[in-house]
Amino acid sequence: MAKRVAIIGGGSSGLCAIKACLQESLEPTCFERSWDIGGLWRFEEHPEEGRASIYRSVIINTSKEMMCFSDFPVPEDFPNYMHSSKIMEYFRMYAQHFDLLRHIRFRTSVCRVSKRPDFAATGQWEVVTESEGKQEAAIFDAVLVCTGHHTEAHLPLSSFPGINNFKGNYIHSRDYKDTQDFTDKRVVVIGIGNSGADLAVEISQTAKQVFLSTRRGAWIFNRVGPHGYPIDTILTTRTNAFLKNLLSQSMVSNSVEKHTLMAPCTFRVLDQHPTINDDLPNRIISGRVLVKPNIQEFTETSVIFEDGTREDIDAVVFATGYVFSFPFLEGCVKVVENQIPLYKFVFPPDLEKPTLAFIGLIQPLGAIMPISELQCRWATRIFKGKQDKSPLWLRPKYVKSQRHTIQVDYIPYMDELASQVGVKPNLLTLFLTDPKLALEVAFGPCTPYQYRLRGPGKWDSAREAILTQRQRIIKPLQTRLVEEHPSAPTMPLFFKLVGAVAILAIGFAYF
Amino acid sequence: MAKRVAIIGGGSSGLCAIKACLQESLEPTCFERSWDIGGLWRFEEHPEEGRASIYRSVIINTSKEMMCFSDFPVPEDFPNYMHSSKIMEYFRMYAQHFDLLRHIRFRTSVCRVSKRPDFAATGQWEVVTESEGKQEAAIFDAVLVCTGHHTEAHLPLSSFPGINNFKGNYIHSRDYKDTQDFTDKRVVVIGIGNSGADLAVEISQTAKQVFLSTRRGAWIFNRVGPHGYPIDTILTTRTNAFLKNLLSQSMVSNSVEKHTLMAPCTFRVLDQHPTINDDLPNRIISGRVLVKPNIQEFTETSVIFEDGTREDIDAVVFATGYVFSFPFLEGCVKVVENQIPLYKFVFPPDLEKPTLAFIGLIQPLGAIMPISELQCRWATRIFKGKQDKSPLWLRPKYVKSQRHTIQVDYIPYMDELASQVGVKPNLLTLFLTDPKLALEVAFGPCTPYQYRLRGPGKWDSAREAILTQRQRIIKPLQTRLVEEHPSAPTMPLFFKLVGAVAILAIGFAYF
Repeated sequence: MAKRVAIIGGGSSGLCAIKACLQESLEPTCFERSWDIGGLWRFEEHPEEGRASIYRSVIINTSKEMMCFSDFPVPEDFPNYMHSSKIMEYFRMYAQHFDLLRHIRFRTSVCRVSKRPDFAATGQWEVVTESEGKQEAAIFDAVLVCTGHHTEAHLPLSSFPGINNFKGNYIHSRDYKDTQDFTDKRVVVIGIGNSGADLAVEISQTAKQVFLSTRRGAWIFNRVGPHGYPIDTILTTRTNAFLKNLLSQSMVSNSVEKHTLMAPCTFRVLDQHPTINDDLPNRIISGRVLVKPNIQEFTETSVIFEDGTREDIDAVVFATGYVFSFPFLEGCVKVVENQIPLYKFVFPPDLEKPTLAFIGLIQPLGAIMPISELQCRWATRIFKGKQDKSPLWLRPKYVKSQRHTIQVDYIPYMDELASQVGVKPNLLTLFLTDPKLALEVAFGPCTPYQYRLRGPGKWDSAREAILTQRQRIIKPLQTRLVEEHPSAPTMPLFFKLVGAVAILAIGFAYF
Repeated sequence: MAKRVAIIGGGSSGLCAIKACLQESLEPTCFERSWDIGGLWRFEEHPEEGRASIYRSVIINTSKEMMCFSDFPVPEDFPNYMHSSKIMEYFRMYAQHFDLLRHIRFRTSVCRVSKRPDFAATGQWEVVTESEGKQEAAIFDAVLVCTGHHTEAHLPLSSFPGINNFKGNYIHSRDYKDTQDFTDKRVVVIGIGNSGADLAVEISQTAKQVFLSTRRGAWIFNRVGPHGYPIDTILTTRTNAFLKNLLSQSMVSNSVEKHTLMAPCTFRVLDQHPTINDDLPNRIISGRVLVKPNIQEFTETSVIFEDGTREDIDAVVFATGYVFSFPFLEGCVKVVENQIPLYKFVFPPDLEKPTLAFIGLIQPLGAIMPISELQCRWATRIFKGKQDKSPLWLRPKYVKSQRHTIQVDYIPYMDELASQVGVKPNLLTLFLTDPKLALEVAFGPCTPYQYRLRGPGKWDSAREAILTQRQRIIKPLQTRLVEEHPSAPTMPLFFKLVGAVAILAIGFAYF
């Protein structure tokens, strides 16, 4: 009998979890609290309890070739950076193509997941769910937690003296929908992460004045890179990852910082999750958004910042991020200060059997969907018992020395997972057997298709998907045919030659 | 008795015209049709007949150090790129400081300006004005036309077959105020100039889909340049102007194009007025704005583009620019196809006496206010009869060979005017007598203060204004004190050396 896997959540991680189970001939049952798929990405006018919530204008900040599932490219005419509605369209196509919906039980929440008495031998779980007021229990051989980490607002009111006397409105960014409530007001946005930056820009379009309060500042990246290419397709390449290893942290910072538009920062670009925003620098330089330090205290009608300046304020947006917790798992895993000890960000290290996995519980410098997918592919292989080596997480020493943050570097982490699954591309073999493909894999954007070239879950069209990825990037921009102008910026032969020599040199150094 | 000068219009050109008259001890009377100063820059909910009109969110695209009047820097805490309301604040400060308002007659329109019978001898004009229904005539020794060129909408409906059958709404960008009428609609914006780009971006925030129709594309500049400096302070330097003269057009294009975010273009960056927009590339890459070719025809509910594609459309914005005309001057100057023959863009060449001047009738690659101001300084010197040489515009051959477009390069044109007035900075003398100042004049942004260092209208604080301009640029961004991080991005010595050698080599190769 096929092993039964419970999947908690029908967002992007839940969808690829179902698919990974099917691929490994496991029997998935996905429990989704709401009436529809999409999780975070499904915009609703009113935030629902226990579900992530986005604002109307959200556009993803990873481009379509970098954020897609590895065997299902985004259609070529879709924009590179998709609005949430387009992402939903893509998810629906994916679910339909792989026939995933029939494995989802909608309007069903998970109340409790607990070890069966014989867990040490079987690794089985009892999962109690609730639907239409009725509770139900079932036994599963494994559990994939796909609930994401953008559900529960982090609202640290105790760090803001006087907030209780403040007479204006305050909300968490989670509850922000559009500018309506902020027109002609003086607004403070607290936090310069992606939400804070997005909201400061959007609110500044109609507000009287926006203040952006930040302790540390941020490095701001534009979505659009050189020659109009998505910046992540330029930065996320194996060559860059290789150079990052080779060069000092400081040299890499120097190079990457060239691609940023600086907000006053107290740290280097690689030290913190970057903020992606195309318009914030412009709003700052035109004074529509004024950057301020941390808030010292609130009065009834104003805010006093740590530099002693005071501003009359009508409304406050706390873009102070999220916390995650797993109430249904009480007793099995501990979240302490928003940290959970997980082996390679997936497996709790203290369980007798590796039958519980957390998917997408990371903050990558890159797209989260392909990571979730590869985590699912790995976890389902483990569930299936197909990994040869004795699992590392049984060696407590290793686990204890690991730092438990959820921020990871994209390519090294993907390669780490891929090595576990046995699907990491072998560059040397590729250069010998298929140099055209090897060049694109080594120097082009590190797209998810690279992890479908070989091994379990190999996809026959992966090679083609890689060789055509640039076409799909350019396609939606070609809404107007343009004749090449006579001296278009092409790379002169000289630089091509220099480049070729450099490539050879790097190649020799590498292998 | 002081010569009397009529100034038509109380916008930015009118204001500095009054000031220039006062400086030359002329007696200015400024006629302003509306109830207030500011012209174009004064936002009104409802466009007024005969006055330029802007949308609510307009932010100027030249930075404060580049667009200010030459003896009146914008306060240091003002943002670098000002919203129209801040520009108005600056104009009011300027008017108050130099006590200009008492020379303005508000709610007074100019009906007719005609040569007096003895014009050939006296150069005098009869000016007929109307206020509160009453007409009045007066004699003036000279006239400054400061009516601008953004008043009359250019709405070329005859070039759009089928527009009369189109059932949706269409407006000219002049009548656009905010996104309200476009929410959830499918909108075509025609034209990728600054208005078209601004409106496409703004409307795309709430519209269902925006299409941006352009025949030729555009090169898009960001307002924010390297290290957060305003891009015009980086590009508009005497060094760049010098290199532009020295290098081939194509080499300059290559260099400047690096600073742009490319929209599909059929021409090089220097061939056309660039579009300044920080967010358009992002809106295009995320598909919220789709670039389309020219419109072939309208149907009742849709638009067919020249590439044969057809889109359902609810509303159309014609960002097709403006035409200028001077009905009050009938018989004196001819505007043919939006072109008017003017000596150095200021003086009509065919008059017996140089007592009529057009101010700000240009489209510079830079700020218009300092140009207007220098034109006024020149024109008032001419009115006063202080120019030594016999005026060039009396040599018909020269005039006929001049191309009459209103687009000019900023620094060469400013220097040309400055030579006429006798205020062009002398770099060689400066390097010998005041090297610190000379360095900033030669390599720093070419700010208007440079034209107050010497000659008529010399301003004693010009030197200080130049040496402190970078402080004023940085000041509004320092809303939060930041300690320098230990390895701040400074250029390593090695690269400095390499750079120095390269510069020397290039120098030798060239000279």
